[in-house]
Amino acid sequence: MTRLGDLAARVGGRVRGDPDRVIEGIATLEAAGPAHLAFLTNARYRRSAESSRAGAILVAPGTELPGRDLLEAPHPYLALAQALEHFHPETRPAPGVSPDARLGEGVRLGEGVHLAPFAVLGARVVLGDRVVVGAGTVLGDDVEVGPETVLAPRVVLYPRTRVGARCRIHAGAVLGADGFGFATTGEGHHKIPQVARVVVEDDVEIGANTTIDRGALEDTVIGRGTKLDDLVMVAHGVRLGPHGLMAAQSGIAGSTRVGAFATFAGQAGAAGHLTLGDRVVVAAKSAVFADLGEAAFVAGIPADDHRRWKREQAALKRLPELLQRVRALEARLAATAGIEGEEP
Amino acid sequence: MTRLGDLAARVGGRVRGDPDRVIEGIATLEAAGPAHLAFLTNARYRRSAESSRAGAILVAPGTELPGRDLLEAPHPYLALAQALEHFHPETRPAPGVSPDARLGEGVRLGEGVHLAPFAVLGARVVLGDRVVVGAGTVLGDDVEVGPETVLAPRVVLYPRTRVGARCRIHAGAVLGADGFGFATTGEGHHKIPQVARVVVEDDVEIGANTTIDRGALEDTVIGRGTKLDDLVMVAHGVRLGPHGLMAAQSGIAGSTRVGAFATFAGQAGAAGHLTLGDRVVVAAKSAVFADLGEAAFVAGIPADDHRRWKREQAALKRLPELLQRVRALEARLAATAGIEGEEP
Amino acid sequence: MTRLGDLAARVGGRVRGDPDRVIEGIATLEAAGPAHLAFLTNARYRRSAESSRAGAILVAPGTELPGRDLLEAPHPYLALAQALEHFHPETRPAPGVSPDARLGEGVRLGEGVHLAPFAVLGARVVLGDRVVVGAGTVLGDDVEVGPETVLAPRVVLYPRTRVGARCRIHAGAVLGADGFGFATTGEGHHKIPQVARVVVEDDVEIGANTTIDRGALEDTVIGRGTKLDDLVMVAHGVRLGPHGLMAAQSGIAGSTRVGAFATFAGQAGAAGHLTLGDRVVVAAKSAVFADLGEAAFVAGIPADDHRRWKREQAALKRLPELLQRVRALEARLAATAGIEGEEP
Repeated sequence: MTRLGDLAARVGGRVRGDPDRVIEGIATLEAAGPAHLAFLTNARYRRSAESSRAGAILVAPGTELPGRDLLEAPHPYLALAQALEHFHPETRPAPGVSPDARLGEGVRLGEGVHLAPFAVLGARVVLGDRVVVGAGTVLGDDVEVGPETVLAPRVVLYPRTRVGARCRIHAGAVLGADGFGFATTGEGHHKIPQVARVVVEDDVEIGANTTIDRGALEDTVIGRGTKLDDLVMVAHGVRLGPHGLMAAQSGIAGSTRVGAFATFAGQAGAAGHLTLGDRVVVAAKSAVFADLGEAAFVAGIPADDHRRWKREQAALKRLPELLQRVRALEARLAATAGIEGEEP
Repeated sequence: MTRLGDLAARVGGRVRGDPDRVIEGIATLEAAGPAHLAFLTNARYRRSAESSRAGAILVAPGTELPGRDLLEAPHPYLALAQALEHFHPETRPAPGVSPDARLGEGVRLGEGVHLAPFAVLGARVVLGDRVVVGAGTVLGDDVEVGPETVLAPRVVLYPRTRVGARCRIHAGAVLGADGFGFATTGEGHHKIPQVARVVVEDDVEIGANTTIDRGALEDTVIGRGTKLDDLVMVAHGVRLGPHGLMAAQSGIAGSTRVGAFATFAGQAGAAGHLTLGDRVVVAAKSAVFADLGEAAFVAGIPADDHRRWKREQAALKRLPELLQRVRALEARLAATAGIEGEEP
Repeated sequence: MTRLGDLAARVGGRVRGDPDRVIEGIATLEAAGPAHLAFLTNARYRRSAESSRAGAILVAPGTELPGRDLLEAPHPYLALAQALEHFHPETRPAPGVSPDARLGEGVRLGEGVHLAPFAVLGARVVLGDRVVVGAGTVLGDDVEVGPETVLAPRVVLYPRTRVGARCRIHAGAVLGADGFGFATTGEGHHKIPQVARVVVEDDVEIGANTTIDRGALEDTVIGRGTKLDDLVMVAHGVRLGPHGLMAAQSGIAGSTRVGAFATFAGQAGAAGHLTLGDRVVVAAKSAVFADLGEAAFVAGIPADDHRRWKREQAALKRLPELLQRVRALEARLAATAGIEGEEP
C-alpha cells in the first residue's frame, strides 16, 4: 500500500493535496480510477485531466487543477518512470545455468548469471555478474558482456562483439554481422573482409530485430546511454553517441560519426561517411546527405533546416496554383505587348 | 483429378465452356499448359490471356475470351485463393510434443498441439487446441495463444502476450518487446517501464521479422483479421484494425489509433498519437503526420490528399522551367518600366 | 611475416618503393603505423595520406605520394579485399554434426558439413559439401543448400527453399515465408496460398534479419552474385540479378523484375509488377513507381532521373521566394493596368 506522500518522496516531487491518499497503480487519464495516479504532461490533455476519475495526477510545477490531489515533480516524465518502477519492479530470472545451455571452451561466467535453455556460448565468452542470456541466444567466440546486462531470447552476437554493463538487447537483434562492403568489378562484387568489431558501451538499449554490423577496419561503436528502437540499422564503422536515440526503422550508413544526444526519428536515415554534431535532430522519414553542425534540426530528403523545409512544403502546396498565376501573368503581358506592338 | 465444373462449384463460380476439362493445377498465363487454370484479373494482361496455353482461365463476370474455357467468378481473386487451397491443401505438422521442447511450470496445452524441437514455453503458458509452435520459438511466462494458431520457427512472444485463434506468425517476428519510451534529462535517457501487453485478435497474420511492441500503460492491439507483412513495426499502444493491412517495412508510431480496413503500403509510416479513420489508405513511402478522416487516401511526406500530391509532384517537375519564366517576366516588366520611365 | 613485394604479387599490383618493407596488417590512414598498409582510394583523403604514419599505402595507378612506399593496384578496392583476406583468413568451424542438432528423415549431408547445436533440419534436407549451419538455424522440409554455403546462427529457410553454392546468409534472415497476398472482400482479407519457392543462386550474400518471401505461383529468384544488406525485403515473385546490390532497409514489392548489376541504395524501394533494366541505380530513400530502362539512375519519390531530381530539389529551395516574386509581379502589373486603365 502506497500513500501519495510516499510516492512523492520516492520520485523527488511534492504533494499538493492529501498526502495520505492511497495509490495502487498508474493509469492513463481515461483509464484511471480513484486508486490510480494518472499524469498530465501535455497541456493538450488538460480537459481529460479535468474529467479524469484519477485519484491523483502527476503534473509539472505550476500546473493548476483545482480540487485535485496533485503530485508535482520537476521532471514529470522521469517521475512517471520512477513511479512505474515502484509499482512494477523489474523481475529478472533466477541465477542458474540451464542444463540445455551449451558453453564453449574457456567460457568465464560472473556471479549470478542466468543462462536459459538453448543458449549457446562460443569459446572464451566472458559474462559479467548477473548477466541474463535468454533462450536460444547465441554468443560467438570471444564475446564479452558486462555486468547486469540482459540479452533477450534469440539475440545473436557475432564473434568478438563487446557489450557493456546494464545494457538491454531485445529479441532478434543481431550485432556483429559483416558490414556491407564489396569491391565491384565487371565480374561481380568481391567481398571485403570485415575484420573489426561491434562495441556497445554501458547503459545501451537495443530494440527487437535491430542490426548493428561489425566494422571493416574500425569498430562500430554505440556510445554510452544510447537507445535504439526496433528494426534499426547501424552500418559498419558508425560511431554514435553517447546518449543517442534512434526510433524504429531508422538507419545510419557506413562510417558516419554522430555526436552526443542526437535523435533520429522513425524511418529517418543518414548516408555514409558524414559527421553529425551533438544534439542533431533528424525528423521522421528524412534523409541526411551532408554533414550537420551542432544542434541542427533537419527534415526532408535531402534533409535541410526544419523550418525551411516546412516553408518549402507549404509553398509546394501552392505550386499548382502558382503555375496558373504565372500563365495568367504571361498572357496579360503578351496582351499588353500586343497592344504596345500595335501602337506604332 | 479435378474437372473444371467441380472447381467452379468449389469456388462459387460457373463454367463458360467445357465443364469436363481436367485441371491439374494453377499457373500464370505465361507458364500455364493445357491442364492448368490460369487467371485474368487485370485487363492489362488481356493479350497474355489470348496467347496463353492455359486449359482454362479464371475471369470476372462478363469477360469475353472467345474460344476459351472460362471459369467465371464474382470475386476472381477469392476464387483463385480457393482454387489454390484445393490443389495445395495446407499441411500442418502432426500433433505431438518434441522431447526437445521445454515447458515451464503450469503450462496448459490444448488437444493436438505441436511443439517442435527447442521450443521454449515459460510458466503458465496456455495454448489452444491444435496450436503449432515452430522450432526454437520462445513464449514468455503467461503467454496465451488461441486455437489453430501457427507460430513459425524462431518467433518470440514476450511475457503476457496474447494471440487469438487462427493466427499465423512468421519466423523471426517479435511481439511484446519494450516500447521505446524514455524520460530524457541532461544526464541521459531514463527508461519508462513498459507494463502493458501486446494483444493480437483472431485471424491475424504477422510477417517475418516484424516487431510489435508492448504498451507502456495501455495494450498494443492488433485487431481481428489484420495482416502485417514482413519487417513491419507497430509501436507501443497502437490500436489497429480490424482488418488492417500493412505492407512490408511500414510502421506506426506510439499510441496512434487506426480504424478498420486501413491500408499502409510499403515503407509508409504514421507518427504517434494520431487518429486515422476507417478505410484510410497511405501510399507507399508516405508519412502521415496528422489525423485522417474516414477513407482518406493520402500520399507524400507529409502525407496529403493523393490527387493533390500527384498534382504537386507534376508541378514540381515544371518548377525549374517556372523559375526561368518568372525571370523572363521580371526582365520584361523591368524593360517596360524602363520604357515607361522614359516616356515622360 | 609479409613483405610488401609479396603482398603486391598476391593482389596483382606492383610496388613503387621498397618491396622488402615488412607489413603486418591493414589499417586506415589515421590508425596505421609503420608496419601497416593503409589505402587511399578517394582523392578527398589525400591530406590524410600525406600525414599518415602508414608504412605503405595502397593506391590506384598514377597516384603520386612522394617519399612513400606505394602498392599500386589496378583495382585498389579489390586489392584491399585480397590483402585483408591474406591477413585475416576466414576461419570456418570444424566439420562435424553436433549431438544437439536434429535431423529429419531422409536428410542427406555432404562431406565436411558442420551442424551447430540446436540446428534443426526437416525431412529430406540436402546439404552440399562443407556447408555450415549455425546454432539454432532451422531448415524446413525439402530445403537444399549448395556446397560451401555458410548459414549463420538463427537463420530460417522455409520448406523447399533452395540456396546455391558459396552463399552467406547472416543471422536472423528468413527465406521463404509466405508472400503478402490476400483477396479482400467486405468480410476481410482471405489468404491466397503462396505455393512457389525462394531460389537463391550461387555466390549470394544475404544480410542480418533480411526477409525474402516465397512466390505465390512463381519462384522468387535472387540471381547469382547478388548481395543484400541487413533488413532488406524482397517480396514474392521478385526476380533480381545477377549481381544486384541492395543496401540496408531497401525493399522490392511483389513480382518486380530487376536486371543485372542493379543497385538499390539504403531505404530505397520499388513498387510491384515493374521491370527495371540492367545497371539501374536507385538513390537512397527513393521509390520507383514505374518501369526503368537500362542504366537509369533515379532519385526521388516518385523516382525520376537523378539530375532532374537534383534540379527540382534545388528549385524547391527557391520556391518560397518565387511565390513572393510572383506576388510582386502581379502587384506591379495591377498597378500598371490601373494606370493604363486610367489612361483613356
